[in-house]
Order: sequence, then C-alpha cells, then structure tokens
Amino acid sequence: MTQNPTTFALKGAVCFSTDSRHLTCLEDAYLVCQDGRSVGVFPKLPEYFSGIPVRNVSPCLIIPGMTDLHLHAPQYAFHGMYMDLELLDWLNTVTFPEESRYSDPDYAAKAYTIFADDIKKSATTRASVFGTLHVEATELLMDLMEKTGLRTFIGKVNMDRNGSAALQEKSAVVSVRDTVRWLTDTAGKYENVKPILTPRFTPSCTDELMTGLAEIQRTYCLPVQSHLSENRSEIAWVKELCPGTSFYGEAYDQFGLFGGENCPTIMAHCVYSSDAEISLMKKRGIFIAHCPQSNTNLSSGIAPARRYLDEGLHIGLGTDIAGGHSLSMLRAVADAIQVSKLRWRLVDDTLKPLSLEEAFYMATMGGGAFFGKVGSFLEGYEFDALILDDSSLRHPQHLSARERLERLVYLSDDHCITGKYVSGNKIF
Amino acid sequence: MTQNPTTFALKGAVCFSTDSRHLTCLEDAYLVCQDGRSVGVFPKLPEYFSGIPVRNVSPCLIIPGMTDLHLHAPQYAFHGMYMDLELLDWLNTVTFPEESRYSDPDYAAKAYTIFADDIKKSATTRASVFGTLHVEATELLMDLMEKTGLRTFIGKVNMDRNGSAALQEKSAVVSVRDTVRWLTDTAGKYENVKPILTPRFTPSCTDELMTGLAEIQRTYCLPVQSHLSENRSEIAWVKELCPGTSFYGEAYDQFGLFGGENCPTIMAHCVYSSDAEISLMKKRGIFIAHCPQSNTNLSSGIAPARRYLDEGLHIGLGTDIAGGHSLSMLRAVADAIQVSKLRWRLVDDTLKPLSLEEAFYMATMGGGAFFGKVGSFLEGYEFDALILDDSSLRHPQHLSARERLERLVYLSDDHCITGKYVSGNKIF
Repeated sequence: MTQNPTTFALKGAVCFSTDSRHLTCLEDAYLVCQDGRSVGVFPKLPEYFSGIPVRNVSPCLIIPGMTDLHLHAPQYAFHGMYMDLELLDWLNTVTFPEESRYSDPDYAAKAYTIFADDIKKSATTRASVFGTLHVEATELLMDLMEKTGLRTFIGKVNMDRNGSAALQEKSAVVSVRDTVRWLTDTAGKYENVKPILTPRFTPSCTDELMTGLAEIQRTYCLPVQSHLSENRSEIAWVKELCPGTSFYGEAYDQFGLFGGENCPTIMAHCVYSSDAEISLMKKRGIFIAHCPQSNTNLSSGIAPARRYLDEGLHIGLGTDIAGGHSLSMLRAVADAIQVSKLRWRLVDDTLKPLSLEEAFYMATMGGGAFFGKVGSFLEGYEFDALILDDSSLRHPQHLSARERLERLVYLSDDHCITGKYVSGNKIF
Repeated sequence: MTQNPTTFALKGAVCFSTDSRHLTCLEDAYLVCQDGRSVGVFPKLPEYFSGIPVRNVSPCLIIPGMTDLHLHAPQYAFHGMYMDLELLDWLNTVTFPEESRYSDPDYAAKAYTIFADDIKKSATTRASVFGTLHVEATELLMDLMEKTGLRTFIGKVNMDRNGSAALQEKSAVVSVRDTVRWLTDTAGKYENVKPILTPRFTPSCTDELMTGLAEIQRTYCLPVQSHLSENRSEIAWVKELCPGTSFYGEAYDQFGLFGGENCPTIMAHCVYSSDAEISLMKKRGIFIAHCPQSNTNLSSGIAPARRYLDEGLHIGLGTDIAGGHSLSMLRAVADAIQVSKLRWRLVDDTLKPLSLEEAFYMATMGGGAFFGKVGSFLEGYEFDALILDDSSLRHPQHLSARERLERLVYLSDDHCITGKYVSGNKIF
C-alpha cells in the first residue's frame, strides 16, 4: 500500500451509481480525491484543483470499489469444488472437515496467504468475512488482511453444537471465553480490519452461547453477521430447535442479535424469508447479503432481491465463497441479474428482473453502506476505486462507457483490474 | 497450425468421459495419438510406442476438446452487452441491426478476425456456427475459421420474412440463389470448414424458402441447424404462422428439415418442447444444443436437459453467443449444472440436477458426436485435446485431477488453456 498525496485525481471513463436506479457514466472525466474521500467527478478539472497530481488511466474505466458482504475465508481453499451437494450435506461432508484444518497454524498461514493475495487483486475493496472457530487462525487472517489495505470485518466463528468432533467448540463457556480472548488480543491492533461477531447460524449455537454472545455484543459494541433462511431443510431444522419462534429471524432476535440501532447486522441469503421476517428485517435495518451464485450451487433457490430493493431494505451482494465459487464481485453482479430473470420467469412474474443499474448498485452502494459512505463517487464518499483495463477485450465498433461496463460485468474477468484504491490509499 | 509427427504422446493428468455417467481421471498418464486419432490413455507408455515423441506437460491437465453446438459469429462483437431484453425484442432492437453491419466487408473482416482469434484460444475445438445472411461475409468467416485449424460447420443464414429493412433477404428466390452461390463458391475449398444449411428460425422463413432449402439440402447432402422452442412468445408466434402444425418442430419437419438419416440436424434450445416434439426429435436423431447461459440471459427459461439425457436423445452444449455472453465452453458446463439445480429446485423435482460427469460429457462426447467419433480419448476417437495449466490457481492442499477439473470448469478461465490439438494437429 502506497501513501498517496492527500489530494489527487484519476482521469478516465467513469461509471458509478447515484442511487439504486441510476448509473452515471462519463466517457472522459476527472475523479478527485481529497483526504481519502471523493470530491466528485468532473468533465474538466476544476480550477480549484489545478496542479494536483493527475493519474491519467484513459481509456480505462474507473468504477467504485465493490463490497463483498458475505464470504468464508477458510473455504477459499476449495472454491469451485465439491459442488454436487445441498447445504446441510455440504456442511457436514465438505465444509466442516475442511474448516477443521485451520486448527493447524501452518495450514492456516498457507491457505490464508493465498486468500489474501487473491482478494487483494479482485474487485473487492470492502468485505465482511467469516473465519473459523479457531482464535489463532482468525488472528492470522486479520494480520494478513490488514496488509492488503482492504477494509474488512472479520469474524471468529462461534459454534458449540451440531458441528463435528473436529469442528465444534467444547461448550458455550469455551466459545465465549475464546471470543473475548480474540477481541482482547486484537483490540486496537489494526487500521483496516475490525472484528465482527459471528455466530455461524442458529443450528450451530446453543441458547447459552447466544446469550453470552449478546452480552459480548453489547459490551464491545460489535456488529454481527450470520446466515438466515437459506434452505428449506435448514429452516425446518431451526423451527425444531427453536419451538418458541414463529420465524427463523426470531431465533436471533430473541437474543438481541438481529440488528437495531446498536447492533448493525448482516444476514446472508434470505432466500425464503416470510413476510413477518422481511418486516422485522426492515424494522431492524438488517443488511441482506444476497448470494446468487451460492444459492444456485447449493440448490437453495433464488432470493427475492427485487422485493428487498423495492421495499427499501438494505441489500448488498456476497460471493459466499465457497458455496459460491467465484471471488469476483463483477460476477456477483451478473449472477444477481441472471437469477432474477429465472425467478421472474419460473417463480413469480410480479418481481421483474434486476437491471444492470440495480445489481451494480447492490455491489457498490448497497453493500457499501454497511461501511458508511462507501460505494459511490458522489461527494463525501470514501475514495474506493477500481481501474479496469478492458483493452484485451477487442471489438470492431465504438462502445460507450456503459456498454464497456456491462461487458466487464458479464465477462467478470478480474485480470482486467489494473488499479485499486481504498479510502484514497493506492492498493496497486 | 503445425504439422505433427503422425504418432506422438502427451503426458500429464488426463480426464475424459467414457459415457454420459463416467469420467476417467488419471493423475499422470500418456495419451497417445496416431494418424490424428487417440490410441488410448496409458499409465505407462506401451512398449510398442517406445521412442515416439512425448510432450510432457505435467502437471497440467489434458482433456478432450469441446464442441460448441450453437453460436452466432456476428454476435460476438456485442457479447456481454444489451442483456436487459427478452428474445423477440432483443432480436429486433439489438441483433438484427448489428447483423446488418455485415453487409460491409470491412466491418465483417474486423469483427470476424476478433472472433476467430478468440475462439482459437478458447476451449472449443469443434463448433456449429451461424453467420449472417450475407454471402461475402460468410465466406470471409469461413476463410478465417479455416486458418484457426478448428473443425467447424458454418452457415450462411436464410431469412426472407420478419427481419428488418436492413436485414432480410428480398425473396425466397434471392435467398435460395444466394445460398447456391455460397455453396458453389466454397465447394471443395476448405479442409476444416464445412457448410451447414441455416434457416434462422421458422418466423424468419416463408414456406417457399423452406421448400427451396429442403431441395438444396437433398441436392448437396447438407446438415441443418436452426432454433426450436426457445421462448413462449416465439412458440405462440410459430403456432400462428403455421396453423397446420401441432408443435413447433413440425414446422421444420413438414419440409424434411428436421433430422433423419440423411439430414443431420442441430436444434438449439428446446426449452419448452412438448412430449410429441421430444418424441419426434428422438425418432429423427436431432442434436439438441442446450444453451443454459443464453436461456438465462434472455429470460427464456431452463431446458429439461436431464430428461433429454436420460431418454437417450443427442444433447450437447452451446454458448449461443451472444444470447450467451461467454465464449467459454468450460463455463457452459458449469452453467448447465447450475441451471439444472435451479430447475430441480423451482420447477420439477423429478429431474435431478446434472452432475459434473454428465455436463462434461455433453460438452465433449455429447456435442462431439455431431462430428463423428469426437469428444473422448477412447481408442479411435479423433485426437482433439486441450492442455490446461492451472498453476496460477493456488491451493494449500493436495488436489486430485478430478478436483482440479471441477475447479477449472467452475472458474472457467480460458487463460488456463495453454495447448490445443484438433485431429492430431497442434493448434498452439
């Protein structure tokens, strides 16, 4: 990560969302950064800024960095493999055995180094990441991610039931104690990485553990991430485990771990959320991490992303490595559009497909909002930017910036990412 | 294209289908080529072949070349763009205007050069390709494709109704005359490229034209390619246009352009084929080009590929550039699996998802059968091979050849393709 001058500009073709329906595209413009934030995008460099350093990347595209609202760092080791199973079988036969390997710090170092290297090069500038239940490995992941310069939330996973002999905390007490140790170890240690409380999902956490985590959440003012209503068998299981609840979200809410002003929360998936659950998510300001690729690979279904967007819920996109196989957030944008078309055609023709504008918004401003003013080049937004060189994608005709953006989204070739800034800091 | 010694071997990790359910994977083996055909795959080089040249590509993967059963070369210019429309609107507002540009030989040369360069580098070794209605441009495409060394069928498109002022043949007579001129011009000219009769689809062709084409088909013993039952509005339109038919396929069959012993035929899509249509396709030996990405992008739906496979119909995969956005046949394999999961979950739980084995088979042996003994390394199959270097995809654990193959299919990164053979000829 290079320290930049506090004020500078990038020059190129610029595309960014201004809201969920509108994309602003300029063929050749100046994007000005001051003190880590965007000052705006200008067809000509304003007189006030004359003389500032300008990095001319024309004709490359410049777009906001993307937020991956949900992924599992330890699962990156097997991304793109073992894709012939449904969620609960996949967890038991593939994921839990693989995650148990992170008790070995050498394996964790090897695996997480690859993960950190690859996510650094990707379209992602912000992410909310699951680790494993292991404190040492999670701290190692945080050390490595700190060095990438990306801004991330990283969670040590909590799970004290329904795991496996090799992957389960001995008790709620041990899980809570390890979580406090992890928080103490890492307190004040990082500039780019922050902890996030991470109960794996309701089937993995006893009531005693949830109670303990809620206390930690209040004490440390932590955000929360977990899974919700991903798969019908999972939902039926939660109903059995929590007979007092009327929908899955209540299993978190009864402990105060489901959003609200002092508990910013990401819930991944929400494929089968009921009206009551959706209503509570809206009330609590839950951020939905829509993970279209994972929901396809694990045969879960297709979440009603259009409904969430139209009803004004917070929604961003997640790659959900390794239920999802691709680390590319450009691909997540294309996937979100594609599955919304199939849902419209096959499930519910009242929810029309997502447009490029809407899916791009989700990947940038939608998820970015979990990190503050992130995901746009509007004035005051943190200066997270990607430079995309599409010169290897030849074409016989003139293409507009918007056309090039759409093509890059669909082709999702992260080789095209040749530059990246986070909060004004040059990552590469 | 380099002339090879007639007998040689490749050494590496080898994966290939032996039938629609089984994949053979060897971690380190010799694949022997003699006179353009596979002799087989051997853990050790048989004594009989000692001394033949061996190209050692270990630890790269070696897999059969893939057959793209359906794509439109002129649409490659806009692949990954204009994806917010359904079929008939997309044809009228995007595709027809773009295809009309191929009346200009300079534009065609520019566009088709890019197409030929890119498909040469892709996973595709065989393809059945639509051109445009323009004779000159189609001949140019054939010239360029000949030089790639890939084995392809290429069709001058016929369309004498429901096009646009800029893209429609003046009459059936003109269309037939141009087709004969095209066949005469190119007769005996190519080693790798063959003509295929290409009525665009029923709505584009008058009965008079279909009658003329059927005569050409018989005279020249040509194979046929077209579209079938892709989209519900299209099917309703065909019903209107052909009141005497009981299903779409009959609109071709009534002219003798729907398979049978002397008329090998590819029909793309078959998303909504009725029982009667499926039964006739089976009887006539129709090759179904399953195009999962295109059917998603154009919100068409999901074809029952599992049913076609289980009922013993011929089925291969197509990228359908540019309804599909990716030229990668590896991606087509992953897409076929993915949409089969969504179909199973959302539409019909009696048709279980496709396995990697089954989708890989479709991309290799399934589509390859249209070209003869193509798509496997079993003895006697034409020697079409890809060398895949996945060393840039780092991983912390040991991976088997099958695991690496699955990962390459899902990541679909054609940058990994570092070598290619067609019928024993080295392409690169």
